Amino acid sequence: MDKESEILERLRGMRAGDPKFEDGKILSSVSTKPLGIAIEAFKIFADTNALDTHIFSKVEELEKECIGWIGNLLHNRLARGYITTGGTEANIFALWVMRENSKKRQIIVPRSAHYSVERAANLLGLEIIPAALDENFKADAGDIERNINENTLGIVLTAGTSALGAVDPVEDVSDLISNSGEKIFLHVDAAFGGFIIPFLKPGIRFDFELENVTSITIDPHKMGMAPIPSGAVLLKNDSLLDKITISPPYLPFKTNTLSGTRSGGAIAATYATLNYIGVDGYEKIVGGCMENTKLLCSELSKLDCVEKAAEPELNIVGIMVSGSDNSEIVKKLGKRGWKVSLNEKPKCIRVVVMPHTSRENILCFIDDLRECMG
Amino acid sequence: MDKESEILERLRGMRAGDPKFEDGKILSSVSTKPLGIAIEAFKIFADTNALDTHIFSKVEELEKECIGWIGNLLHNRLARGYITTGGTEANIFALWVMRENSKKRQIIVPRSAHYSVERAANLLGLEIIPAALDENFKADAGDIERNINENTLGIVLTAGTSALGAVDPVEDVSDLISNSGEKIFLHVDAAFGGFIIPFLKPGIRFDFELENVTSITIDPHKMGMAPIPSGAVLLKNDSLLDKITISPPYLPFKTNTLSGTRSGGAIAATYATLNYIGVDGYEKIVGGCMENTKLLCSELSKLDCVEKAAEPELNIVGIMVSGSDNSEIVKKLGKRGWKVSLNEKPKCIRVVVMPHTSRENILCFIDDLRECMG
Repeated sequence: MDKESEILERLRGMRAGDPKFEDGKILSSVSTKPLGIAIEAFKIFADTNALDTHIFSKVEELEKECIGWIGNLLHNRLARGYITTGGTEANIFALWVMRENSKKRQIIVPRSAHYSVERAANLLGLEIIPAALDENFKADAGDIERNINENTLGIVLTAGTSALGAVDPVEDVSDLISNSGEKIFLHVDAAFGGFIIPFLKPGIRFDFELENVTSITIDPHKMGMAPIPSGAVLLKNDSLLDKITISPPYLPFKTNTLSGTRSGGAIAATYATLNYIGVDGYEKIVGGCMENTKLLCSELSKLDCVEKAAEPELNIVGIMVSGSDNSEIVKKLGKRGWKVSLNEKPKCIRVVVMPHTSRENILCFIDDLRECMG
Repeated sequence: MDKESEILERLRGMRAGDPKFEDGKILSSVSTKPLGIAIEAFKIFADTNALDTHIFSKVEELEKECIGWIGNLLHNRLARGYITTGGTEANIFALWVMRENSKKRQIIVPRSAHYSVERAANLLGLEIIPAALDENFKADAGDIERNINENTLGIVLTAGTSALGAVDPVEDVSDLISNSGEKIFLHVDAAFGGFIIPFLKPGIRFDFELENVTSITIDPHKMGMAPIPSGAVLLKNDSLLDKITISPPYLPFKTNTLSGTRSGGAIAATYATLNYIGVDGYEKIVGGCMENTKLLCSELSKLDCVEKAAEPELNIVGIMVSGSDNSEIVKKLGKRGWKVSLNEKPKCIRVVVMPHTSRENILCFIDDLRECMG
């Protein structure tokens, strides 16, 4: 066997040793199997660098179309931004942009925020003022209001928390910013929920249609079904970018992204995914996930000793089994091939119902859960 | 035509509208065309997330092998680190690790450092103490020594500057750290040079074989020939990671990377590239680039009014044409299909001689340069 075949054979063997999305038993991931067309698109642009608009002008064009598509989805055709490597880069970028456009250094962050927000604040030297959650594990708007003062740089809300898919009350917080009379940035981390909420009926208001939302993180590589790496950050005004735009002294263009070299392949893959699935397609995909989430909830309600941590608005369910050690149940489920994880706050078994999980998978999971509880 | 074909046809058409590496006329890029095996490897692992070691244990294994391979190359089998999205993430990470392990806040940075170092310092609230360059545009070790004091957190050197491929005197600086009696971190940004210098004969000492080097940035997606995104950051001691390691409250593992979700495909592609090319292969590739660089220099020496900005140690040449507007020459070359860029400091035409550029390309470039100067 030649060297190339040997290496690829080893890689195929290794990949086969880990779980596959197609089996429907991965219930702990917020990513899913990308489309074949996306991988093909990646391949076409695999040798391109999105930083280098001098050579790869077409990647810039594709990226603008992606951001336009997403901006449109988020009620702001004029939003500016870029395809990041994921939600962490997007959150760091959004907080960095805030900081560079103000002298204030405090951000109000509900306790359910993604860990990358704390990491970003640590990097950037911002002080986090934690805000409480309500009984549904959403940000408590009243507590946020109490914490607003003349030092408040911004507020970070989550539209689809990692633990429970909770959607913070963005509209209420946007309103109270208006009432505060302060200039306060409002960043919405919709890394997970951004490709779900716009397709829900009835919808939830969380994006640029709300006056004070200044930036949004939204990950195509989560419910957008694009291959990793593909996050996105969108800003309400491109004037916010002025402070961070630089001209590398050895290249004939300006840049205002946090990353330098960026994969043109990932942008092409995102473009292909967005355009192939389209708004109608996402509506169907999200509809299917929500239907399966409802099925999971109704089946759970038939089990004794089982409660939901909260009523799910999106496709994540927190399962609390009373009278049992939930971590033991997770281990037992793991032995049966189910990949589920355990939430710390609130303590519960976390199930994400992604597009790779079918109705049959849910019913089978319920059977196994019942047995593992016994 | 169906939707899938339509989208892919558009993408192929767009890609065809931009320059190709195969034509050998891209002289401004530090990346090159990736290998077919790397794209195949990406495809096999395209649905995996390197963050999620709970599901994708094999990606973790592959990444460890990549870091082991690179650590070996850099004289430290025990170095710890990870595959980043590129040099910028690697540099931010290295400076972040420094900062979290000390109370000092000043870093000494020669003026030729990559712009991502300034960006990282801005993000992290570190104060840059600029150091002068010598006549070859390398860091002036004497000036660094004069700037060391009790507030010095670290020194950032470059092994292969973006503008001219200059290799800073890492050994001298490592020695003067020993002599200073201070605890000072030494980060080497070898994003470009890391896959060149180890294959040069005679070599240049720049890596962990020097006692005080604490971290290194090295990009497989530059001269390592891996597809974008693939950077790497390596730390001398894994104890440096303690301060930044966290456990996401909804996932069953710890993480100490700056990015959250990370492409398993990119890691597999890096693995395939490193193992397919191998040390012998890189020696040949680097040897070829250096030979073509010498050819370029010797042909340049035959031209009137042309000087080199410095004697190149790596495969980047700065061309100074006296009595002409160099930016006009770059424009004229551009009309003939040559992608070259202009350095600000020193003012010169920058030519990177990558593996996609052949001997014939160089000779053809010289002919065109002569005509564009006229």
